[in-house]
This record gives sequence, structure tokens and C-alpha cells, in this order.
Amino acid sequence: MEQATEPAAGISLDELQLAARNHAMPLEVLRQPLTPTGLHYLLIHYDIPAVDTATWRLELGGLVERPLSLSLEDLRARPAVDLTVTMECAGNGRARLEPRPIAMPWLGEAVGTARWSGVRVRELLDEAGVLPDAVEAVFSGIDRGVEGDVAQQYERSQRLDEPALDDAVLAHSMNDAPLLPQHGFPLRLVVPGWYGMTNVKWLERITLVDRPFDGYQHSTGYRFKRHEDDPGVPVTRMLPRALLVPPGIPDFYSRERILGPEPCLLEGRAWSGYGEIVRVEVSANEGTTWFDADLEDDVGSRWAWRRWTAEWDPLACGRFVLCSRATDAAGNVQPVESVWNVGGYANNAVQRVAVTVAAG
Amino acid sequence: MEQATEPAAGISLDELQLAARNHAMPLEVLRQPLTPTGLHYLLIHYDIPAVDTATWRLELGGLVERPLSLSLEDLRARPAVDLTVTMECAGNGRARLEPRPIAMPWLGEAVGTARWSGVRVRELLDEAGVLPDAVEAVFSGIDRGVEGDVAQQYERSQRLDEPALDDAVLAHSMNDAPLLPQHGFPLRLVVPGWYGMTNVKWLERITLVDRPFDGYQHSTGYRFKRHEDDPGVPVTRMLPRALLVPPGIPDFYSRERILGPEPCLLEGRAWSGYGEIVRVEVSANEGTTWFDADLEDDVGSRWAWRRWTAEWDPLACGRFVLCSRATDAAGNVQPVESVWNVGGYANNAVQRVAVTVAAG
Repeated sequence: MEQATEPAAGISLDELQLAARNHAMPLEVLRQPLTPTGLHYLLIHYDIPAVDTATWRLELGGLVERPLSLSLEDLRARPAVDLTVTMECAGNGRARLEPRPIAMPWLGEAVGTARWSGVRVRELLDEAGVLPDAVEAVFSGIDRGVEGDVAQQYERSQRLDEPALDDAVLAHSMNDAPLLPQHGFPLRLVVPGWYGMTNVKWLERITLVDRPFDGYQHSTGYRFKRHEDDPGVPVTRMLPRALLVPPGIPDFYSRERILGPEPCLLEGRAWSGYGEIVRVEVSANEGTTWFDADLEDDVGSRWAWRRWTAEWDPLACGRFVLCSRATDAAGNVQPVESVWNVGGYANNAVQRVAVTVAAG
Repeated sequence: MEQATEPAAGISLDELQLAARNHAMPLEVLRQPLTPTGLHYLLIHYDIPAVDTATWRLELGGLVERPLSLSLEDLRARPAVDLTVTMECAGNGRARLEPRPIAMPWLGEAVGTARWSGVRVRELLDEAGVLPDAVEAVFSGIDRGVEGDVAQQYERSQRLDEPALDDAVLAHSMNDAPLLPQHGFPLRLVVPGWYGMTNVKWLERITLVDRPFDGYQHSTGYRFKRHEDDPGVPVTRMLPRALLVPPGIPDFYSRERILGPEPCLLEGRAWSGYGEIVRVEVSANEGTTWFDADLEDDVGSRWAWRRWTAEWDPLACGRFVLCSRATDAAGNVQPVESVWNVGGYANNAVQRVAVTVAAG
């Protein structure tokens, strides 16, 4: 990557420790419609909990007529719905901001696409009978840790009038297999189109409440703030992003690419939480000029990434910086330069891939 | 971790890029005898190749009487042997050396244990009939990239008189499932007791040769060198290492642990490529004093890690640095301080886990 040759302030061992746990998706597997097992990005706030399914229950309570308490067998016995979703960490791209916000230092590959299967959230809410004064559902995970000096369990809420909640599922399966421990076994929430923090893992409780939830992950974390005293606005849906499969072969250490002078097919994928991807452009000169890529749908879900391809003829040997840029149906376009915020969220500046074209 | 609060030279974005691809094992899954799918450590020199099993063959040639060419179906049709192995990257611990050797910056968690299944290497060598002047077998992977400015495919050799080769397998399965792409699908070499670089992934060829192989990964990479001009000696088997499951709950960012003042059971695992683990000691004061842990075998393989447990009563609130230290049957003991070498290999200095004991 171009930026990799111009390091700003060095990454600390604390940040590296997070990067060792929370892995990104290797870009070459962008070739595949669904991300292979074990390569979907992971962001685990605390520890992966060990869950005993003999005693685990999903409790649904608060402002409902009939609280529910369901075992994993109860949930698996219901007809399952499938939801194929591209999911991205809200902090993706953070490590390329300057000054760098201190948290998990994602470069730009914190993404993955999976087919999640389980029970519709609305189905359970309807069964429980949501009372009229309820406005949000709070989703609570089993996992516990400390953030902002407060010991807490991981919790996020959704407004009941959020349209994406109509498609949301409580997933017990991923790509036709039981959830892996690191992806939230035995049950996780999946809300399509939103950044990953919404998709609470190791779910144990859903609570209907009559006012906006003000837990740590809403009031302090996951807010766009221009400066430390800015109350900020919530981080919600994914901004558009296109990624390309780095062509040629890599240098082990720098990951810079080496390829021959022949025309080559560039390919990648693009997604947005705000609407379908309607355009992907490619640049071979770091964004000075752009040309259009061809779009296709090989996943078949409105909530998943679209594949794109573009023929590129380098015409000459030398060093090039390849970029791709996505536009969604809502008119959002990826910026060429990063937009800074305190938490380092949603930096969807275009990817840069440095390649050296050399005769064999 | 204690060291994490005292960063030396910052990690570069190039190193971070490697850390995003090559993930470590989250320490909490040390509780399990076999590492769950997707959490075994990964070190991928180049890219994960896409392999077409319709055309893929394993070729066995060179100094043999009868060269072999086998499809994946041929290999799967043979009776499979199982080999449960703890595998660790030779660069594990590199990021804690000063000055830090520049390569994949592992902190200490580049390890995993899996049950590999496939065909014994010796079975195929016997079938092919190794000629008398052959001294080594060279294992070649499909994956290609650039190291030391030389475009190459990944290759490593083993001496034919290496005892571990008697147990080595060509694995087509991992934990009773087909190999995942990132672990070498369709076939990888597994030589028990050796560091990970030996276990060539995406294997396509075995070549018997009459002299020591001098490919890049032997002549330049994976050598212990005291200084740049030192020819060095080869990196081979795993030195002993014990790791402990960090107790309590983590702080999200620093990963420091918080726990109550009650006695707690510390647990972890230890392994060595030089012999059985015969002793694990634990310290709660960063190695000033040590006490013995209890050892058990819950995996049942001489090539896999042993579980250890130790009751610890903090007696008082405050900050402690927990360590564990392994000794193997060959008399190797983990050092408290790191031993530096040019490539940053085999740094098995004891792990340090900072915990704060506080009343509820």
C-alpha cells in the first residue's frame, strides 16, 4: 500500500495486541462471493465467552405483554430465514487517519460477507407483544469487560421504527454451519446495512424500553465527534467502500505487488448500507483520472457487496498506485482523502494499492 | 501486558498490514484442547492461492525409482492417519525484541493445536522408492511471492534421517473437516515438533535431492544469526513455551485484566518440540518467585501442548504481573528475558499478564 511506505506516528504494542486478536480479511479472498470460514473480519471488545448451551436462554422482556424465554433448541426448531450480509467494522480505516485515534488500528480490510440464518427479530417481538410505549429494543451480550473505566456487558439498541429491523435476524448459523464461538455462538443479532457494532454477539437478552438507550456503546462509543467536547452523532449505516484484489504477486514484507506488463483484469467488491452500489470507478494514477468498472451481482442479496471488474493495460513498466471508488444509489461517493473524527469511525477514503509493473 | 505500557520504537504500517492478515490465537481459547476453527494462528508468506482440484496433482519425483502423481481423490482414498500437533510460528515473540527485527510482529500468541489427517510422508516415499544417494526431500508450495528481491515459490526441505519425518503427514483434513484455504487446501505438510515454516501449505511437489537444499527459506530466512554477517544456524524445533489464560475481564484497549480478590484457578498450556513438558511454574511477581503448576494431558498426543493449572490467592488488592514458565524433558527452560537474534526467531521469554485485583 502506498501509505505503508510513509509511516506517521508508530503503532503501539497495545494497538498491535488488538490487531493480533481482531483479524481483517485477506484481500485475495475478495474473489469469493462469501468469505471463507475463519477469514471474515472479527472485532471482539472483551473476551470470547464460553457458553454452556444447557443453561443458556434468550430472554425477551421489558415492555412486552408476554416475556419469552427460549433455549437454543427452541430457536433452531423454528423455520430459519437466511440473510446474506456484508458486514464491516465501524472503525475500518482508522489506522490511516492522522492523528490516529487510539483503538483497534484497522487499515481498511475489516469486512466480510456471510449467509446468516436464524429467526426474524420481528417474529419474536410480535409473539411477545410489544407495548405501545416501547421505542427501542436493547440487545445484551454475555461478554463483559471495561471501557471508559466502567465494567460493563456489551449492549446496543435499535429503534423499533428502524426499517432495517424488518430484515434483521437472530442468527444461530453462519454459512450453513453453527455459529463459531468468535462470531457469537450460540446467537447473535444481524441488522443488515449497519456497521458491525450493532450486531451484538453472544446474545442473552432483548429488553424493550420506552426511551433511547444511553449505554456506553451509544453515549460514549460509536459517535462521530469533531472534537473531544462535541456530543457527536451516532454511527449507524455503512458508507460506501470498494476494495480491489491486489493483482500480481506480493513482496512478503511490504505487500507491494509485482506484475508483468500485459493487460490484466482488475476485480473487487463494493458495498454500502445506504443503497445499492450503482458505480465503481478505477484509477491507475492514485485518483488523478478514473474509468468505470463493470458491475455484477454474484451474491444475490441487496445487503451484500457487488462484484466489479475492469480491464487495465499498464502500457508501460513502472510503479502505479491503483484505486477504486464506489458510489451508492443514495448518492454517497467515497472520498479520495480521509475525513477525520475523534473515534476514527467510517474512514472510507479510497484504497491505494501500489504495484510495480516489470518485464518478466 | 506489562510490556505494552512501555512501547519502544513504534510498529510501522507495513508491519501492521502483516498483523492484519496473519492472525494470532486469542488467549482465552487456550482453555480448549483443540483450537477452534478460524482461531488457529496463520502466517501466510504470499497470498492464499485459489487451487483448482480438477487439475491439481501432488508430484513426487527427483531421486526415486518410480515417480508418483496423485490427485486429491487418490490421497483421500488411502487410509488416513491422525496427528494432533501444537504448531507455533518461528517468529512468535519477535515484536518484544529490541531492537525489533522487521517482519511479521508477533507478540507471543502465534500458536494453535489441530488434529491433522492424511497420508504418512514415509508411505509415499517408500512407494516411490527413494534412491540411495537422496539425502533430503524438498517440499514445494503453489504460493508465489518476492522475498529478498527474488521472486520464488515457497519451499522447504527435510533431511531424510530427521526422526520427526517418521510421524509427518501430508494432511488433507484439519479437525475432521477438509483443509481451509488459508491452512493449505488441498494438501499441506505437517512435521510434528518443528516451527510452522516447515509445514509447507498448498503443496504441489516433493523432490528427492542428493545435497542440502539451499533455497531462500533455508539459506537466508529461518536462521539464527547473531549479526548480519553471521551465516547462522537453521531454525528447527520449537523451544518450550507456556501461556496462561488471562484471568478476570479485560480492559478493551489495554487488555489489562481486572479481577476480584478471591482465590482463582490460573490455567494455561505448554509445549516444546524437544520433548514432553515436565514442569510449569507460575509467578505472580514477574518472575521474582515461582510456584509449581499441576500438569495434565487432555489432548492425548505427545506432539501437543499439555494443560496446566495453579491455584492463586492474591491475598491483597493491587497490581500483579503473572508469568508462567515451562521446562521440557530435554532440560530446556524458558528464559525470563528475551534472547535477541537478527531474524527475531524463537523468542520464548516468559509471557507477562498484568492484572489489577480490586474489591467488587
